[in-house]
Amino acid sequence: MTDVAEGERRILVAVDEGEESMHALSWCLKNIVAQNSKDTLILLYAKPPRAVFTALDGTGRRSEDPSGYLFSSETWAAMEKYAADVADCVMEKAKKTCRDLHQDVKVETKVEDGDPRDVICQMAEQLRADVLVVGSHGYGGIKRAFLGSVSNHCAQNVKCPVLIVKKPKTSAGSKSE
Amino acid sequence: MTDVAEGERRILVAVDEGEESMHALSWCLKNIVAQNSKDTLILLYAKPPRAVFTALDGTGRRSEDPSGYLFSSETWAAMEKYAADVADCVMEKAKKTCRDLHQDVKVETKVEDGDPRDVICQMAEQLRADVLVVGSHGYGGIKRAFLGSVSNHCAQNVKCPVLIVKKPKTSAGSKSE
Repeated sequence: MTDVAEGERRILVAVDEGEESMHALSWCLKNIVAQNSKDTLILLYAKPPRAVFTALDGTGRRSEDPSGYLFSSETWAAMEKYAADVADCVMEKAKKTCRDLHQDVKVETKVEDGDPRDVICQMAEQLRADVLVVGSHGYGGIKRAFLGSVSNHCAQNVKCPVLIVKKPKTSAGSKSE
Repeated sequence: MTDVAEGERRILVAVDEGEESMHALSWCLKNIVAQNSKDTLILLYAKPPRAVFTALDGTGRRSEDPSGYLFSSETWAAMEKYAADVADCVMEKAKKTCRDLHQDVKVETKVEDGDPRDVICQMAEQLRADVLVVGSHGYGGIKRAFLGSVSNHCAQNVKCPVLIVKKPKTSAGSKSE
């Protein structure tokens, strides 16, 4: 068994544009990361596959469709730009949360393309995470239908300890958080 | 959101006779419970329903079976005694682990009858746990077939954050741990 001394851990936190993952990050900062620790927090964002964006935009037509000019190179470029902007936005928000709650913690960021379920599991192994933190129901509605439950998948497939944090329903109304 | 100050948390740890739950407890003591904290660790053991013991003993005949004298009151009493002894043994081992790794932490114990999945979910609510810690694959073989995956069930049904700790396979050989 390779136990890690407290305060020298690599804590992998899966973040996305949902409130749930930011709540998980906050909970982790308040409850897992010790003050004056040497923990490294690795913020991981998975850029979802294109199918999700096309579905979200309601433009899920195939490029061989006669009306498929919607998927011109400009459209793809715009989608890529959109995905990159979302990734930046999520990471900025996550880093701000870290600074606000835990000024001293060392933070790294990682953005990877792919299905969040695969990306998170792969990164947990590759980065030798000591613990993985995920929000529950990080993907709602259409995205959940496409991507399934990320937290369930991770809990079953990641070897390191997995902390699943649910956002309390009582504060679910504060959309602007 | 009702965040709890670090060091005043109620950490519920589901323990059983398997190595996985003791590993989860150790990991929790090393990684979640802060030194000099006011955390309370609540060790919870669910005494499994009788069906499990009868299956384990290979004597799963029904009492209306002509050869059902095996299920005399003496047999039931012996089973109850066995279950109580196992519970004592598990709790002693768990308390020793706590003392060894974290002398100062406040420890409470709770033994409840029932399917571990139900017991753990109910207790997490009832005891207002701030976090639930469970080992993964706490039930192997026959018991798993009867009881299903406890960690999955808890992750899906408990409202508080759930930490699922898997025992590394590399040390799985040390049965006497």
